[in-house]
Amino acid sequence: MEELFVVKIGGNIIDNPAKLKNFLNDFSQLKGRKILIHGGGKIATEISKKLNIETQMVEGRRITDEETLKVVTMVYAGLINKNIVATLQSLNSNAIGLTGADANTIPSTKRKTTTIDYGFVGDPVSDTINTDYISTTIEKGITPVFCAITHDEKGSLLNTNADTIASVLAVALSKVYSTSLLYCFEKKGVLKDINDENSVINEIDEKTYPVLKDEGTISQGMIPKIDNAFNAIRSGVNSVYICDADDLGAIINNKEKKGTRIFKG
Amino acid sequence: MEELFVVKIGGNIIDNPAKLKNFLNDFSQLKGRKILIHGGGKIATEISKKLNIETQMVEGRRITDEETLKVVTMVYAGLINKNIVATLQSLNSNAIGLTGADANTIPSTKRKTTTIDYGFVGDPVSDTINTDYISTTIEKGITPVFCAITHDEKGSLLNTNADTIASVLAVALSKVYSTSLLYCFEKKGVLKDINDENSVINEIDEKTYPVLKDEGTISQGMIPKIDNAFNAIRSGVNSVYICDADDLGAIINNKEKKGTRIFKG
Repeated sequence: MEELFVVKIGGNIIDNPAKLKNFLNDFSQLKGRKILIHGGGKIATEISKKLNIETQMVEGRRITDEETLKVVTMVYAGLINKNIVATLQSLNSNAIGLTGADANTIPSTKRKTTTIDYGFVGDPVSDTINTDYISTTIEKGITPVFCAITHDEKGSLLNTNADTIASVLAVALSKVYSTSLLYCFEKKGVLKDINDENSVINEIDEKTYPVLKDEGTISQGMIPKIDNAFNAIRSGVNSVYICDADDLGAIINNKEKKGTRIFKG
Repeated sequence: MEELFVVKIGGNIIDNPAKLKNFLNDFSQLKGRKILIHGGGKIATEISKKLNIETQMVEGRRITDEETLKVVTMVYAGLINKNIVATLQSLNSNAIGLTGADANTIPSTKRKTTTIDYGFVGDPVSDTINTDYISTTIEKGITPVFCAITHDEKGSLLNTNADTIASVLAVALSKVYSTSLLYCFEKKGVLKDINDENSVINEIDEKTYPVLKDEGTISQGMIPKIDNAFNAIRSGVNSVYICDADDLGAIINNKEKKGTRIFKG
């Protein structure tokens, strides 16, 4: 199977134009098959404020009411996504910007109301991903660039977690490609000491993970991220990297050991 | 050659949710190959107002400064385009929303400053359209839905006239398909008497057009639209229709004579 890199960049990179430009430059130079998924950053919150739309948070999560859905659709699928595509084109990297509604790539289910009504929030599953369209696009030399918007197939767009999109895409496409999933953010990787950027744990596998957790070496906030990484690996993904956006090229080209690689072991 | 319908809907339909829904329902039921191009409507102006961005007009044309470009990108490529795609998906019509930057479908040239600086405005030409990507998409049964945003291949998105996009796409694709171009708006067609919806001129060809102009039968405002239609026809398009959005189905299915058909004759 051909190799595919599924790369996710977080909101902190989106919010920093110089860092984003740098990243896109590195990304455009990666040889081979790749997909980009981007988060939203702070722009949606800023635009909501200017439009007098209240941002409601419950237990640290944004509630997506009808007006908020309009704003995230404008900002994620319009402003951010299309500017990333235009920048990649200028770097001679042919790209196409997509939501999960486009070509029905990512059908989702609107999250059920339990004690909290999250509003127009979608949860996709890897089984229903339209891998045929995505792989045809990749094989034509066009890089799909996904924003964090999906749809319910009933006419509603849905705000969706970008990490989840990256993960379900990587799992679904692991049936067609030998897939690596890379979460790029502003830290060097999973750190032993959160205040020391040089304390990166380079490798975590299924044997070392429980030990690292028991020791308290891995901080609480990282646990769900790593749990999700192992879920992806158990579902067919080769490796998951948690790394600095600046280290993308070094990791993919295997020149240097950078970031944290999570694998079956 | 297979038949292709290139359909453009104007801003007045976008601004009317009931009319838009009706139109998309009709459009989704059209058998065969098709493309949709949509205008922007008033939403961009409303959002600009709320964001305190001044809308500058010179000689009836909107000037697209950096802030205005952000708004039209959000509204056209995000809000309107993705909601149209989600609605078509809910009607079992597989669609993909595109700007001219996506898959480099419509490279454009930023309009030169003469006495007026239009800002980030693009003028596309039919020769550089990426017909390969567009026809591959159509042949996979996916309908491309274009908003009126293109790019300069140097990293800038460009605000672009939707009528022009429809025309250059129809011309470019007439090398691959037998192409009809349909401009759908809120009137029944080209009217002899602007106040009488029953005065539609059903057919205009290259012989009757000069006569109708000389008689003053065709109103001043329609002349550039019809001139453009004849330009498209001379460049390979079969027929151009100017018609009511409500009559789309009737025209394509040839059941009734509706709207104005412009053809070589």
